[in-house]
Amino acid sequence: MSLLVVGSVAFDTVETHAGRREDVLGGSATFFSTAASFFVPVRLVAVVGDDFPESHITELQSRGVDTAGLQTQPGKTFRWEGRYDDLNEATTLDTQLNVFEHFKPQLPPGFEDSDYVFLANIDPVLQGQVLDQIRNPRLVALDTMNFWIQDVIPGKLEALKAVIARVDLLFVNDKEAQLLSGEDNVVLAAEKIREMGPKTVVIKRGEFGALIFGENGIFAVPAMPLERVVDPTGAGDSFAGGFLGFLAASGRNDADTLRRAAVAGSVTASFVVEDFSLDRLKTLDKGQISERYSAFRDLVRIPE
Amino acid sequence: MSLLVVGSVAFDTVETHAGRREDVLGGSATFFSTAASFFVPVRLVAVVGDDFPESHITELQSRGVDTAGLQTQPGKTFRWEGRYDDLNEATTLDTQLNVFEHFKPQLPPGFEDSDYVFLANIDPVLQGQVLDQIRNPRLVALDTMNFWIQDVIPGKLEALKAVIARVDLLFVNDKEAQLLSGEDNVVLAAEKIREMGPKTVVIKRGEFGALIFGENGIFAVPAMPLERVVDPTGAGDSFAGGFLGFLAASGRNDADTLRRAAVAGSVTASFVVEDFSLDRLKTLDKGQISERYSAFRDLVRIPE
Repeated sequence: MSLLVVGSVAFDTVETHAGRREDVLGGSATFFSTAASFFVPVRLVAVVGDDFPESHITELQSRGVDTAGLQTQPGKTFRWEGRYDDLNEATTLDTQLNVFEHFKPQLPPGFEDSDYVFLANIDPVLQGQVLDQIRNPRLVALDTMNFWIQDVIPGKLEALKAVIARVDLLFVNDKEAQLLSGEDNVVLAAEKIREMGPKTVVIKRGEFGALIFGENGIFAVPAMPLERVVDPTGAGDSFAGGFLGFLAASGRNDADTLRRAAVAGSVTASFVVEDFSLDRLKTLDKGQISERYSAFRDLVRIPE
Repeated sequence: MSLLVVGSVAFDTVETHAGRREDVLGGSATFFSTAASFFVPVRLVAVVGDDFPESHITELQSRGVDTAGLQTQPGKTFRWEGRYDDLNEATTLDTQLNVFEHFKPQLPPGFEDSDYVFLANIDPVLQGQVLDQIRNPRLVALDTMNFWIQDVIPGKLEALKAVIARVDLLFVNDKEAQLLSGEDNVVLAAEKIREMGPKTVVIKRGEFGALIFGENGIFAVPAMPLERVVDPTGAGDSFAGGFLGFLAASGRNDADTLRRAAVAGSVTASFVVEDFSLDRLKTLDKGQISERYSAFRDLVRIPE
C-alpha cells in the first residue's frame, strides 16, 4: 500500500548532554519517511531551499522515498535550533521558517491515490488542503503541536479542529491532549478527542511510551529502556513513521494490527534516539528491527 | 507464607484536585498491610500514639492483619500533611513525627520467622535493626526516600547502603534511583543499584507504571489508565503491598512470579488512588482485583 507524508524537511542544530550538532538533517517529514521506509516505499511532499544538498535527496531516494513532491524554492531551508536539558522536552532556541513560510503543499501526479497519509505538524490550513487533494485514502493520520492548539495565530485552532474531524488517527503528546480537550486526565482527554473525529488517538509520552485509545479499548506500549539516549529529536515522527509504515505494509487497520503497528513505531523511535539526527537509521537493518520487536514482547510479557 | 511489614501508621491531611481530607488513616505500613491483606495475612510492626482509635486497629485485624507488633506509646500518632498540585508529586506541608520519633521496632514473639519482609521507608538504621531480628527470610524488600539518600542527617546514607546490601528487592522512584546511583539514565541507575546488593530493583514511575530490573532482564508494567484519580497517597506502598502479598501467597520468587507480582502490585495501587486514604480498599474484593488483573493483560497484549 502507498504511504504519503507531508511535512517539513529541515536543518537542525541540536544540543543534548551527549554533545552538539550543527545544521544536521532534520524535519518531521524526513524522520517520518526514513523511519517508514523500513516497512514500505514512501511518497514525500515538502519544500527545501536552494541550499539543500543533492546528496540528502539521493540518500532519501536510495531508501525508497519518492521525492517527486519535494519542491526546491529559492532561499534557505527551514532551520530549527534546540536544546534538551531534560531528554523529555526540547527548548527551542531559534526557528527560521525560510522557504517553509510560504510552503504550498502540491501533490505531484499519482500521489493523490495514496492509501495511507501522514499529515506531519504543519499549519492545519495546509493539512486540510492536502486532504482535499487525496482521492480515497484508507487511513489518514495527523500530528500537530501547541502552537496551533493555543491559537497563537487566531483561526488556526478552528482550522485544526476542522481537519482533525476528517482524520482517522491523531498523534499528540500528554500536554497537547490536555490543551486540545480541556481535560487534565489522559483517559478523559483521549475520549473527548475521539469525539472530535479520530477513531484512534495516540498519546505520546516520551520515555514512558504511548497510550493508544481506540474503538476496542486502550493499548499501553512502553518505550524501550535504553542505556544511552543521545538525541530525542525526531522520536515522535519516527514513532509515527514506524507506526504508519507497518500499517501500510500490512494494508489492515484492525485493532490488533494497530497494536503491532504501535510496537513497530516504538521500536523504530528507540533506534532514532540512539544517535544524532538520522545517523542511527543509516546503519539500521530489518533484522535489528525484528530483534528489538521481539525484545518488546518480552519487555511487557505477563506470564500465564 | 508469612509476610511482615515494618513502617509507619499515620494520620494524613491531604489536599488534591478532588478535595481535602483531614486526619485520615495513612502511613506506609497501613497502606502496605491493607493492600497485601487481599493476598495473605500480614504481620504489622509499627507505633501509634494514645490518640489512635481502637476502631482502626479492629479494622486492620478484620482484614487479617496481625497487630501484635503495633505498639501504643504515650503521645500523638505520626501526622503528615501534603498537597498534590500535580498527581505525580506531593508537596509536604507539615510533618509531625510525634511517637514515631522514638520508634524502636521490636518484633513480638513469633514474628522473627517471617518468610517475606517489607521494610517500609523508615530510618535505615532501624531497617537494619529489624533485619537483625529476622531469622531466615525468603525475600526482603526495602523502600526508602530522598531524605536518607541525600544524607540530610550525616551517616544515614551509609546506613542505607549497608541495609540495601542485605535485601533482595529495592523499591525506588526515578529520582531516588538517580540520587542513589549518580546515574541519570534509568537503565544504568538500576544496574548500579543492583551492584549494591538487591537482585531486583523496582523503579516506580507514578502514573507511568514501573520498570522491574532483575536477573532475567527488564519488565515494564504500566499503571492502569484511570478516568479519575482522587488521591495518589499510598500508591507506592500499596504497589509494594500487592507485589509482596502476591509473592508471599505464591511462595515463589522466580522471574515469572516476580512479573505477575508486579502486575498484582500495579492493580492494587490502581484501586487505592481512586479514593482518599484507604477508602477504596474498604469496598474492594478479590473479584475486582482479578478482573482488573485481566484488564492489565489486555492493556499490554501484543498480538502474535
